[in-house]
Amino acid sequence: MNGVKTVALLGGGVIGGGWAARLAMNGIDSLIFDPDPEAERKLEAILANARRAYRKLSLAPLHEGGAIRFVGSVAEAVAEADFIQENAPERLDLKVKLLAEASRAAKPDAVIASSTSGFKPSDLQVDCEGPERVCIGHPFNPVYLLPLVEVVGGERTSEETKRQAGAFYESIGMHALQIAKEADGHVSDRLQEALWREALHIVNDGIATADEVDRSICYGPGLRWSFMGPALTFRLAGGEGGMEHYLRQFGPTLKSPWTKLVAPEMDDALIARLTEQSDAQAAGRSIRELEQLRDDCLVSVLQALRSNDYAAGNTQRAYEERLYEASHKSVFSESDDLTKPLRLHEARVAPEWVDYNGHLTESRYLQIFGDASDALFRYLGIDADYHAEGLSYYTVETHISHLLEVAAEEPLYVTTQILDSDEKRIHLFHSMHHGGDDGQLATAEQMILHVDTEAQQACAAKPEVLARLGRIAEAHGALVKPELAGRQIGIRRKA
Amino acid sequence: MNGVKTVALLGGGVIGGGWAARLAMNGIDSLIFDPDPEAERKLEAILANARRAYRKLSLAPLHEGGAIRFVGSVAEAVAEADFIQENAPERLDLKVKLLAEASRAAKPDAVIASSTSGFKPSDLQVDCEGPERVCIGHPFNPVYLLPLVEVVGGERTSEETKRQAGAFYESIGMHALQIAKEADGHVSDRLQEALWREALHIVNDGIATADEVDRSICYGPGLRWSFMGPALTFRLAGGEGGMEHYLRQFGPTLKSPWTKLVAPEMDDALIARLTEQSDAQAAGRSIRELEQLRDDCLVSVLQALRSNDYAAGNTQRAYEERLYEASHKSVFSESDDLTKPLRLHEARVAPEWVDYNGHLTESRYLQIFGDASDALFRYLGIDADYHAEGLSYYTVETHISHLLEVAAEEPLYVTTQILDSDEKRIHLFHSMHHGGDDGQLATAEQMILHVDTEAQQACAAKPEVLARLGRIAEAHGALVKPELAGRQIGIRRKA
Repeated sequence: MNGVKTVALLGGGVIGGGWAARLAMNGIDSLIFDPDPEAERKLEAILANARRAYRKLSLAPLHEGGAIRFVGSVAEAVAEADFIQENAPERLDLKVKLLAEASRAAKPDAVIASSTSGFKPSDLQVDCEGPERVCIGHPFNPVYLLPLVEVVGGERTSEETKRQAGAFYESIGMHALQIAKEADGHVSDRLQEALWREALHIVNDGIATADEVDRSICYGPGLRWSFMGPALTFRLAGGEGGMEHYLRQFGPTLKSPWTKLVAPEMDDALIARLTEQSDAQAAGRSIRELEQLRDDCLVSVLQALRSNDYAAGNTQRAYEERLYEASHKSVFSESDDLTKPLRLHEARVAPEWVDYNGHLTESRYLQIFGDASDALFRYLGIDADYHAEGLSYYTVETHISHLLEVAAEEPLYVTTQILDSDEKRIHLFHSMHHGGDDGQLATAEQMILHVDTEAQQACAAKPEVLARLGRIAEAHGALVKPELAGRQIGIRRKA
Repeated sequence: MNGVKTVALLGGGVIGGGWAARLAMNGIDSLIFDPDPEAERKLEAILANARRAYRKLSLAPLHEGGAIRFVGSVAEAVAEADFIQENAPERLDLKVKLLAEASRAAKPDAVIASSTSGFKPSDLQVDCEGPERVCIGHPFNPVYLLPLVEVVGGERTSEETKRQAGAFYESIGMHALQIAKEADGHVSDRLQEALWREALHIVNDGIATADEVDRSICYGPGLRWSFMGPALTFRLAGGEGGMEHYLRQFGPTLKSPWTKLVAPEMDDALIARLTEQSDAQAAGRSIRELEQLRDDCLVSVLQALRSNDYAAGNTQRAYEERLYEASHKSVFSESDDLTKPLRLHEARVAPEWVDYNGHLTESRYLQIFGDASDALFRYLGIDADYHAEGLSYYTVETHISHLLEVAAEEPLYVTTQILDSDEKRIHLFHSMHHGGDDGQLATAEQMILHVDTEAQQACAAKPEVLARLGRIAEAHGALVKPELAGRQIGIRRKA
């Protein structure tokens, strides 16, 4: 299923549009059928949000954007599709009809998945041709950022279909959760729904407002739930005795009347009350502003969990590693053009790298130059195996000159010139340029030392690395020495 | 209530110990009464976790640690306490007796709060002397990291008590949620409990395992819940129509049988099943290891939300601002000793600043030196008002020399010598040292330019800043020029 090039999206609203955005970011084409005349306009807003979020989410090299095309019929959407994702409104009759129509026009080996949040796959696949390839792939809003997708099979779904769907979702950066047994609402929405019904009672009984309910989650248990679910949380609450101790100690509270157990009547009074409280909570911020706030927080939380390589952070890290691999960071080859400085590193200024003036923070310059040095080391053939032998290049000296300011979101590239080298040292000169106008933004002259990390002392690099380095240094010896190289810092005064 | 110096903790287990840790980190003394002979040993483990987490959480200057002392009776604990926090096991008779005893020995103006997760304050305050000062302050585990505390008053609790308790909790970095109406389980635990009961059904029915239930939360809705609760989330699901549209559209699904509505019987079979699944999920990791993993993730998530200044990140940011204010970063005074380099900045290597070799990442050196320059600017009298006039010092050139490696958790300080200056420029030399042995770790020579940020060009600093700078530069003119100043980068070869 990793060969998916084109996906048919049946329905292009919040969920279908979210799928289109995630697919586009992963270089996969979408063909969308949606009878809503506003669908294209709405999709543009989702795509803008997604592009904004992905620029902040990662520096890993994304695939070239996939194309998105709206088509006039189900048959036209599915005819050439490798994978079909249905995202129609939650009405069983509508979905059954749509899936049946799609199954008759689709390629015989295309998986057909439904984004339904509530229906069981057995009830959806009834009229399909080839029901064994019909399953549920239930995503969460915003689809382009949240990794979870529940994969559920019905009575007639094959195991191979569930496996293929899971593999495809994982290839586009998601966490595919295979659900063993179909049930109304699957798993995640049933849990959310239980919490929401209780929240409705709390608001209905005047115990707390909508905003207070939200705060009772996101300042406490919600922080934990971003990386540990209720089972692991309660295992920790059980102390050394773990889960069994917890269940035996707190089991009796299950008898206490802590939840109202049935949903309250959603009458006009309760709707009015919640609507008013929700308006107060939004404090005049538009849906678009709230969506961007949500996406900014999600991006930061995903990055935070990535630094711990845990839960959704593990998904994100694995996804980025695959992107880096796919981009084939190049290693030196004899046919490379060495008649000018190397261009091995590109970056974009992440919004969290700028200071209160909106400009790239001082220390991030060194991070970008450090990344450029890492790109040079990869180019010289230094990889994880090389490091595993206890050998590495370390920076011992850096001289940075700041020439022009750089703002958030600006694209950058770095060129690298080898000024001098010997078997233990590389003397190099990085130059940071604007990706648009090629203007020089900053420079860094560095002395890099090859070290035995165990012995903590300098040592010669391995012969194959020195051979590549020598070829580059020799060629770069013919280049003009940069004006700012060899510079001393000082206030120059007129005599 | 901001004058609280000593808190009595009645019960020193997971919750009481968590309170002791948070109080100690905030320079407040605890007197603990706990009949458990193991209490002191257990507290040490909690304190070790808390110290580890706080070192990573923030560089803001914490208060000197508060003292913790175990005492032999309730009376001894509460006699001199400004605030009393009860953390006994969840048994109503026990808590009523304990609170009554405390109320009779306490100072008359001391607030008495209970950490109860389930009982209503009206039922707890019945036998107390001065019941108007008894309320609930319900925290969440780990108390030293999670900001939420629910403040609930009973029939006889005064509004002033609830206000005082809230102000005290906020002074130690928490988010005090005032609950309007008392109810069994308050708000947050009722919501957690509803979700957990549903999870038990899902496990009991074989739909998903404990680990799958957890994943259905933390890869999806749990990521959102770390900063937006269910009400704001569903407002966004309603699109432009907001909450009312959402309720009218999805209201009917409240009738669908998505939750089981009553808790399953917690029989031995279900306990055994969950215990087995929980063991599998823990995969051999001890409670201590899981606690540290949890704390690491919480720290990262709190930092992530701080960068967005939203939800718990807003609480954390406000808390740090107060800590910085309280530490009185000093401004130049004529009586200062200028016969040696200035020592204006201290830091500790945060664990997320180190690379895969366990050493301080290259770019973080520049961050620490940049922070030292910021400390110099504050010392020169440059504050937010100065910046508001469109005036600022910018770094234009930096020369870093790396001398010794620095590892995670190491304490550092930076000394700063003014080498030269004029009305627009400062030529300075920073030297980074180990806080323990004073060894020199790295140096940074910098050229700093005073700029008009509107006009984007250099301009003279204001006279009062230049006067201070002139005094320092004059005195530092008598110091020996550092050996590494004025250095050029290059490979020196024998002739």
